[in-house]
Amino acid sequence: MDAGTSFFGDLLGTIAERGRALLDIGRERRPAGAIRAAGIADLCERLLSGRGEASGVALAQEILVAYRTLRTGERVAFFETLANDFGPDAARLEAALAAHVKAPSTRTVAELHGASEPRRQELVRRLNLAPGATGRLVAMRADLLDALARRPDLADVDRDFVHLFTSWFNRGFLVLRRIDWSTPASVLEKIIRYEAVHEIRDWNDLRARVDSPDRRCYAFFHPALVDEPLIFVEVALTRDIPEAIAPILEAKRTPLDPANAKTAVFYSISNCQTGLGGVSFGNFLIKQVVEEISREFPKLTNFVTLSPVPRFRAFVEAERANPASAVLTAEDRAALDAFEAGTGDDEARRTLRPVIEALAAHYFLVARSAKGKPLDPVARFHLGNGARLERIDPFGDLSPRGMKQALGLMVNYRYVLDDIEKNHEAFFDRGTIVASPQVKKLLRADSHPVPAVREAAG
Amino acid sequence: MDAGTSFFGDLLGTIAERGRALLDIGRERRPAGAIRAAGIADLCERLLSGRGEASGVALAQEILVAYRTLRTGERVAFFETLANDFGPDAARLEAALAAHVKAPSTRTVAELHGASEPRRQELVRRLNLAPGATGRLVAMRADLLDALARRPDLADVDRDFVHLFTSWFNRGFLVLRRIDWSTPASVLEKIIRYEAVHEIRDWNDLRARVDSPDRRCYAFFHPALVDEPLIFVEVALTRDIPEAIAPILEAKRTPLDPANAKTAVFYSISNCQTGLGGVSFGNFLIKQVVEEISREFPKLTNFVTLSPVPRFRAFVEAERANPASAVLTAEDRAALDAFEAGTGDDEARRTLRPVIEALAAHYFLVARSAKGKPLDPVARFHLGNGARLERIDPFGDLSPRGMKQALGLMVNYRYVLDDIEKNHEAFFDRGTIVASPQVKKLLRADSHPVPAVREAAG
Amino acid sequence: MDAGTSFFGDLLGTIAERGRALLDIGRERRPAGAIRAAGIADLCERLLSGRGEASGVALAQEILVAYRTLRTGERVAFFETLANDFGPDAARLEAALAAHVKAPSTRTVAELHGASEPRRQELVRRLNLAPGATGRLVAMRADLLDALARRPDLADVDRDFVHLFTSWFNRGFLVLRRIDWSTPASVLEKIIRYEAVHEIRDWNDLRARVDSPDRRCYAFFHPALVDEPLIFVEVALTRDIPEAIAPILEAKRTPLDPANAKTAVFYSISNCQTGLGGVSFGNFLIKQVVEEISREFPKLTNFVTLSPVPRFRAFVEAERANPASAVLTAEDRAALDAFEAGTGDDEARRTLRPVIEALAAHYFLVARSAKGKPLDPVARFHLGNGARLERIDPFGDLSPRGMKQALGLMVNYRYVLDDIEKNHEAFFDRGTIVASPQVKKLLRADSHPVPAVREAAG
Amino acid sequence: MDAGTSFFGDLLGTIAERGRALLDIGRERRPAGAIRAAGIADLCERLLSGRGEASGVALAQEILVAYRTLRTGERVAFFETLANDFGPDAARLEAALAAHVKAPSTRTVAELHGASEPRRQELVRRLNLAPGATGRLVAMRADLLDALARRPDLADVDRDFVHLFTSWFNRGFLVLRRIDWSTPASVLEKIIRYEAVHEIRDWNDLRARVDSPDRRCYAFFHPALVDEPLIFVEVALTRDIPEAIAPILEAKRTPLDPANAKTAVFYSISNCQTGLGGVSFGNFLIKQVVEEISREFPKLTNFVTLSPVPRFRAFVEAERANPASAVLTAEDRAALDAFEAGTGDDEARRTLRPVIEALAAHYFLVARSAKGKPLDPVARFHLGNGARLERIDPFGDLSPRGMKQALGLMVNYRYVLDDIEKNHEAFFDRGTIVASPQVKKLLRADSHPVPAVREAAG
Repeated sequence: MDAGTSFFGDLLGTIAERGRALLDIGRERRPAGAIRAAGIADLCERLLSGRGEASGVALAQEILVAYRTLRTGERVAFFETLANDFGPDAARLEAALAAHVKAPSTRTVAELHGASEPRRQELVRRLNLAPGATGRLVAMRADLLDALARRPDLADVDRDFVHLFTSWFNRGFLVLRRIDWSTPASVLEKIIRYEAVHEIRDWNDLRARVDSPDRRCYAFFHPALVDEPLIFVEVALTRDIPEAIAPILEAKRTPLDPANAKTAVFYSISNCQTGLGGVSFGNFLIKQVVEEISREFPKLTNFVTLSPVPRFRAFVEAERANPASAVLTAEDRAALDAFEAGTGDDEARRTLRPVIEALAAHYFLVARSAKGKPLDPVARFHLGNGARLERIDPFGDLSPRGMKQALGLMVNYRYVLDDIEKNHEAFFDRGTIVASPQVKKLLRADSHPVPAVREAAG
Repeated sequence: MDAGTSFFGDLLGTIAERGRALLDIGRERRPAGAIRAAGIADLCERLLSGRGEASGVALAQEILVAYRTLRTGERVAFFETLANDFGPDAARLEAALAAHVKAPSTRTVAELHGASEPRRQELVRRLNLAPGATGRLVAMRADLLDALARRPDLADVDRDFVHLFTSWFNRGFLVLRRIDWSTPASVLEKIIRYEAVHEIRDWNDLRARVDSPDRRCYAFFHPALVDEPLIFVEVALTRDIPEAIAPILEAKRTPLDPANAKTAVFYSISNCQTGLGGVSFGNFLIKQVVEEISREFPKLTNFVTLSPVPRFRAFVEAERANPASAVLTAEDRAALDAFEAGTGDDEARRTLRPVIEALAAHYFLVARSAKGKPLDPVARFHLGNGARLERIDPFGDLSPRGMKQALGLMVNYRYVLDDIEKNHEAFFDRGTIVASPQVKKLLRADSHPVPAVREAAG
Repeated sequence: MDAGTSFFGDLLGTIAERGRALLDIGRERRPAGAIRAAGIADLCERLLSGRGEASGVALAQEILVAYRTLRTGERVAFFETLANDFGPDAARLEAALAAHVKAPSTRTVAELHGASEPRRQELVRRLNLAPGATGRLVAMRADLLDALARRPDLADVDRDFVHLFTSWFNRGFLVLRRIDWSTPASVLEKIIRYEAVHEIRDWNDLRARVDSPDRRCYAFFHPALVDEPLIFVEVALTRDIPEAIAPILEAKRTPLDPANAKTAVFYSISNCQTGLGGVSFGNFLIKQVVEEISREFPKLTNFVTLSPVPRFRAFVEAERANPASAVLTAEDRAALDAFEAGTGDDEARRTLRPVIEALAAHYFLVARSAKGKPLDPVARFHLGNGARLERIDPFGDLSPRGMKQALGLMVNYRYVLDDIEKNHEAFFDRGTIVASPQVKKLLRADSHPVPAVREAAG
Repeated sequence: MDAGTSFFGDLLGTIAERGRALLDIGRERRPAGAIRAAGIADLCERLLSGRGEASGVALAQEILVAYRTLRTGERVAFFETLANDFGPDAARLEAALAAHVKAPSTRTVAELHGASEPRRQELVRRLNLAPGATGRLVAMRADLLDALARRPDLADVDRDFVHLFTSWFNRGFLVLRRIDWSTPASVLEKIIRYEAVHEIRDWNDLRARVDSPDRRCYAFFHPALVDEPLIFVEVALTRDIPEAIAPILEAKRTPLDPANAKTAVFYSISNCQTGLGGVSFGNFLIKQVVEEISREFPKLTNFVTLSPVPRFRAFVEAERANPASAVLTAEDRAALDAFEAGTGDDEARRTLRPVIEALAAHYFLVARSAKGKPLDPVARFHLGNGARLERIDPFGDLSPRGMKQALGLMVNYRYVLDDIEKNHEAFFDRGTIVASPQVKKLLRADSHPVPAVREAAG
C-alpha cells in the first residue's frame, strides 16, 4: 500500500470516527422532553423545507437521535406518517398529469417523474446529511421490515428505502477486505454474531476460520457504515471438492499447506445487515473473491461451494405424504423409513445413498415452483449467478440442523469464470438448470427433466 | 487515529488502488476495433437487460473504456442516444397512466413514478459497478456540460446525472481532510490546478498557503473519487478582519503566531470537479471548517470571508452609461473618471473611497436582478448560507483582475454560527440582505433600500 | 492523523509484514541437515568476518533460523560458545593494554574500550540485519535467561544482550498506543496472555477492560517487534481513590461517565517480553499515560495506583514466627489468628483493620532489606519513579492470591507530576519513603521510623 | 496491506507527530535566559546522574532545545566539553586496570570495557529519551563533522556518535519505501534537495523521475527520523544497458512500457543525512531494491548502474603532467589535446574513444592508491558490494560536471545476485577487481594488470 493510498485511507478513518462518536448513545444529548413520532414528523417537514437548508446537518441529527428514543409502537406511527404524509405532492402530481395529458413531451414526463416521487425519498437523502446517518437509516429500515410483517401498507415506504439503498450501496462504492487475525476485534465480533450458516462457537472457532493457512474470509464494507461488514464469505482451501461440512469445521484438523490446494470452497456466506435486505451483494462478492484467491494461489482450479439444501426435506416429506407420488418407489420409502428409524449405520447409508441422489436430482432438475423456478432458494442464488450444480453430497451435513432441513444432503455449486455469463443467461432466458453430467446421470430413467436442463461442459 | 480507524481507512485505500489502476489509460486494453457510439449503446442495452447481470462489472468497464476512445462528436452522439433511446419506457408509461387514470392509488402513483424514470438512470447506476467508475462518470458529465451549451435538448440527460450525483455525493458520504505539506503530491498538484480565485503560481506559493502556521486548507473528498478533491477552501488566520487580499497572498510576509489570531479568513473557495457542477458542497464545507478551526483555536472570534464582487464593475458601468442614473452623482462620475485616468494616487483614492462605498452599499442592499435577487452571485452564495455582509473594502484587490471585475472592491461576509439559520431564513423567506450596521450606514440617505434589509445584531 | 503521518505509518507496516513472513515458521526453509550449535558458531564467525559483509542479511537469517531448530541443550551449548569464543579479542586486548601502559592517552583508552568489547556484541548487531531479527533476538535472550538460572557463567553473555537492548529499546524509539476494541485481535490476545497481575479470564473480560467508557489500556510498542506489546497498563477512571480491586474487575458494574471521574487508577502493569527483562519501561509508561489521560480528561485530579504488596505476608509470617517480635503485640497475634481461623466476618475485619494498618505502616516505613531498601519490590518501583505512598487498603484484594501474598492488603501510590522529581531524589539520595500524612499516622508510637521518612505535602 | 499492518503502521505515525511537534521551533519554549554551552554541560551531568532519572525525558528535551540556541562557537565549546569532561571515568578506569593486572578474568575485562566507555555514550543514549531526539542528535553530529575539519581533537567524540548511530540505524531497523507521486510533498522536497549526483531541477523534473511507468525511486527510512529519507536510489527501466546519462534525464522522452524492459539502471544514489556520514546503507539499499524490482518485473535480466568516475580526470591530468608517463602515448596526448581544443565533433570523438577506453581500463584495473586500493571511490563502493565492472562508456556524461570530473566518462557496474558474495570476497581478500571480459580487453598489451584481476563469467 503506498502513501497516497494511505491518504485516502485516512478519509475513511475520519468517517469512522465521526460515525462512532454519533452512534455512541452515551455521548448524545437526548432531547430534553422526549420528541415523539409527531414531533419528529414536524422536524422532517422542516428538514424538507428550504428553511431547513442552513441547518440541515443539525436537524437531520436531531431527527435521528429522536427516532432512537421512540418505542416500537411510536416507530410504526412514524412509518405511517412517512407513508401517508410524505408521499408524492398531490397537487404537483395532478398538475403534472394535466400538463402531460394536454401536451405530452419529454418535459412533461420528467415532471411526472419528479411529481410522483414520494417526498420521503428526499427526506431520507437529507437525513443522511448527519454524520453516521447511513448506519442509522439502515437500522431504521430494519425496524421497518419488522413492522412490515404485520403492516403491508408500509410497503411503499420500504420500496423507497430499497431504492435509495440500492443506489448508495452500489457495488462501485463497496470495498472488499480480507478478515483475518489482525482485523480489529470490533469487526471480528460481528463476524461471530452474523454467521448464519454454520455457527461460530467462540473466539477460538473464529480464529480457526480466519487465521489458518488454508482458510480465508472476505467481507464487503461500505465507507459510510462504521465497523460493519455487509456480507462475508468463508473459504476453505482443500485438495478435493469436499462432500461434507464436518471435516471443514473440525477444530483439530491439520491445516493443509495452501501450496497443495486445488480447490477453494465457499462454505458459508452470510448477509449481515437486516436493514439492507433486498440489496444484493453476494453475486459480486463471490466473483471478486474468486479473483482475489486466484491471484494469491494461481494453481487453484476448482471454485465450488459446499451448500445447504434448505427445502429438500420438505420436498421429500411432501412426496412421502403423497401415496400417488411418481417420484418415490416402494424401495425408496423403505430406505427412508429405515434411515429414520435406525441409527444411520453404514448399511442403511449404503442403501439410502442412491435414493437420496435420485431424489436430489429430481428436486433440482425436475421439480419446479408454481412460478416455474427451482424449489431451492440457494440453488436459485448460485445458478442465477452463473454457477452450475456440480455434485450431490448425500451425507454432507449430519448435524441436527442438516438432518432437519435436508436429510443430511448438501451439494456443490461450481463457478467457472468463463461459463458464468452463459450459464446465467441460460438460467434466466430459458430456465435451464446447468448441471454437471454426473448430476444428470443420477436422474432416473423415468424422470422427465424439464427440457431446459443443459449439458455443462465437463 | 486508532487502529480501528485505520482498518476502515484501508478500505478506501483499496478503492483508490483499484480506481487508479483502471484510470491509468496506459494499462487499458483498448477495444481492438474501436467501438463507436452506436456499439456502446448496444452494450448499454445489454447492461440494462437481465442478461447483463452476471457480467455487469465487466460490461460496465468495457463501456467506460470504450467511451474514452470516442471523439467529441461521437460523445455527443452517445448523449443523443441517451436522450432519445434511454428515456422512460414508453409502453410501460402508457400503461401506468391508463391504470392511474382508471383507479388512482398509491400503487398506481408508484408505478407512474417507476415508469416515468428514464432508463438511463438505471444505466448510470449499473455503469458505476466498474472499479473507478464514479470518477469516469463525473468526467462523462463534464463532457455533457460542454455539449449542453450548444445542445439544450440534452438537458434531460443532464438532469438525470445531477439527480444521481446529488444522491451519491450526499454530504453524509463526504470526508473533510486538511491539506498540508504532508499531503501526497498527487493531491497538491490538483490544488494548484483547481484554485480558481487567486491563482497559485507554483509549489512555493502553494507551500506558503498550506504549510504556514497561520494558514489552513481543507477539502472535501468522496471515497470513490481517487485523489480528487471536490471543493477546497483556503484560510488565513489573522488578527483583524482583513480589508485587502494582497497582504494575505504576500510571499514574504512574516507568519502570525496562530495563538495571537482572532480571525479566520476564508479567502478562496474553489470547486474542483466540473462534472459535479450543480451539486453543492460549499455550504457544508464552510460550516465544517468553522467547527474544525474553532476546535483547534478556541480563541478565534471572527469567521469571515474576503470575497470578490464579480459583477460590481458591470453594475457601475451600467450606471455610468445611464445619463439618468439615480445612483451616480456628478461628483461620483468625476471621481470614477479621475480614478481611471490617474495612477491611483492616495489623493484619488481618498476621494473615491466614499463613492465606492456608497455604490457598493447600493449594489448589495438595493439593486436587484429581474428575479428579485441580489446581483452578486458570491453574495447569493454566502447570504444564502446564512452569513451576513460585514464590511465593504474599497481597495481590496487592485490586481488587474480585481480592477476589471470590481474596480478593486472586495467585501467581507461573516459567519456567526448562532445566526446562520435565522439569516438564511430571512434571506430565503423575505429576501432580506442581512448586513452589519456599518454597511447599512454607507447607504446614502436618498437610497431606498428594499424593505427587507434587516439589522444584524452587532 | 494527517497524511504525512500515514506515510510514515506505513513504514512500520512494511517492517511488520516482513517480520511476520520471517517469523512464520511454516514458510521457513529448514536447513536440510540440521545445522547444530557448532555449525551455527561457524556461521557466526563468518558473519563477523569481512567476508560475510556482502551476504550479511542472508547469513544472519540463516543463523536465526538454524537457532530455532536447536533443542534446549544445544542452545545452551551455543550460549557457551558465545561466552567462550566470542568474548574480547585476546591478542588485541593485550596489545591495547601494553600500549596504554606505555603511553596512556585518550587514544589508548579508546582502543582499550574497543579491544575489551566482546565480539558477540557486534555479532548480535549483525544478526539484527535479518528481517524480523529483533524479535528473534529477544526470544533468544529469553532462552538465555532460562539457562542462566543454572549457568551463572553465562552472565557475561547476558550483560551484552542487556547492553544492546537498552540501546535499541531506548525510550526514544518506543511508541505508546492505546489498546481498545478496535485493536487487532492478534494484539489483544497478547494482552490476555501477558496480563500478570489480575488475570483476564476471556474475551468478554478483556472487552470490559479496554472497551468501557471508564477504562483505558495503553501499551508501549517498538517498531521492529511485530504485534508485540512491550509493557501495558490498565487504567480505571473512578470518582474516588479505590480501596479494593474487586469492584474494578467486576464484570457487571455500571460504567462511570468519565466526565464525572476524578481519579485515574493504574490497577495493573504487566511486562510482556521475558527477553527484555532488565530493560525498564514502566517508569516512562506511567508518566506518558498520565499525560495522555490528562489531555483527554482535564478534570482528573488524582493519578494513583491500586497495587499489590507481594512480600507483606512473608513479612508478617516472619514476625509471627519470631516470639521476640517487637512489631507484633499479643493482640495483633490474636487478631491475625482469628482472621485466619474464622470466616472473615465483619467483626473480625473490624478488629483486624488497625492491626494490618499498623503492620503495613511498619512494613513500608520502617522495615528495610539488608541493603537498606524497602522490602516491597512494587514499592521500590513506584517510589523510585517518584510516586508517594498514599494510602493503606487492608482488605483490598481478598482473592486467594491476594490473601496468600499479602493477607488481602493493597496500597495506593500516587503520582503528582510536580513532585515526581523531588520524591525520586529523596528516595535515591536519602532513602526517604515519601508517604502521605495519613499513612504516617498509622505508625504506632513505639515504631522508630527511619529518619528519612519525609512528609509529603497533602 | 492488512489491518494489522495498519495498526503498527500507526505506531510510526505517532512517532512522527510527536517528533514534528518537537522539531517545530515555533512551538518551543526557548530557555528564558539563554543557557549557554556551560549550562548545557551541567544539565548533561544531571541527566547522567541517578537524580536525572525521574525527569530524564524533560531534561533531555531541555538540553536539545538549548543546544539549538547555541551559536557555532558555542557548539564547538560544547563538543570540547564532551571530549574533555565526558570521556571515561578516570578513577574507575584506573581501578579496573589495577584489578585486571592483578588477576585478569572475564570479569575484569568486562569492567575494563565498562570503565573505558566514554560517559558521553550514555549521555547520548539518554538525550535520545526526548521525543524527536534522534533527528536532533543526527543534526548535532552534522555540526560536529563541520567542526572536526579544523578540530581533529574532537575525533573521539565523533567515534562515539558513529558507534551509537551504527547500532541505532542497524539495517534491521530501516524500512524501504517506494517514493512516487503520492508520496507526501514534505518527503519529495527532500528528494529534490538531497539529490547529489544529477540535480533535480524542479517539481516537474522530480515527477518525471518518480512518476513515469519506467522509473522507480526507493529510499530507506528510520522510524525515529521524521520525514527524512536516509538514502535513496533512482532507477530507470530500459531495454539495453545505457551508455549515457542524458537520454535517461531527458524531460521529453517517451516512457518505455516496463513490460518491455530488460534492464534496471541505478543511475543515482544519494545519501541524505550529513550527520549519518560513515554509517553505511547503500549496500543494503541496492540489494533490496534489486529484490523489489525483480518481484515487480520478473523478466528483468540486467541490474546495472550508470556511474560517474569522479577521479578519472585527475588521474589523466596527472599522467599528462608527467612527461615520463608510461600510460600515455604521444597519440593519446594529441587526441586529448584535440578533444579539449576542439568542439568535440564526431571525428574527434571517434579518435578519442579508444584512448579513453584504454585509459579507463588502466585507471580501474591497474592503477592503485598508496593503500593498494582502486583510485575510484565509486568503484570501491560497488566492487566492495560485490558488483563487477561491466562496461566503459566514454561519452556517458558530457555535462560540464561530467567533463570536469571525468572527461565525460561513465561506467556500468553490474549486480548479479549469485556472484555478489564471491566478487565481494575476491575484492576484499585478494584485491581483485572483477571486470567483464569486454572491459579487460580494453587494457593495452603493455599494461601490467595487477595479478588479481579476475575473470568474471560472461
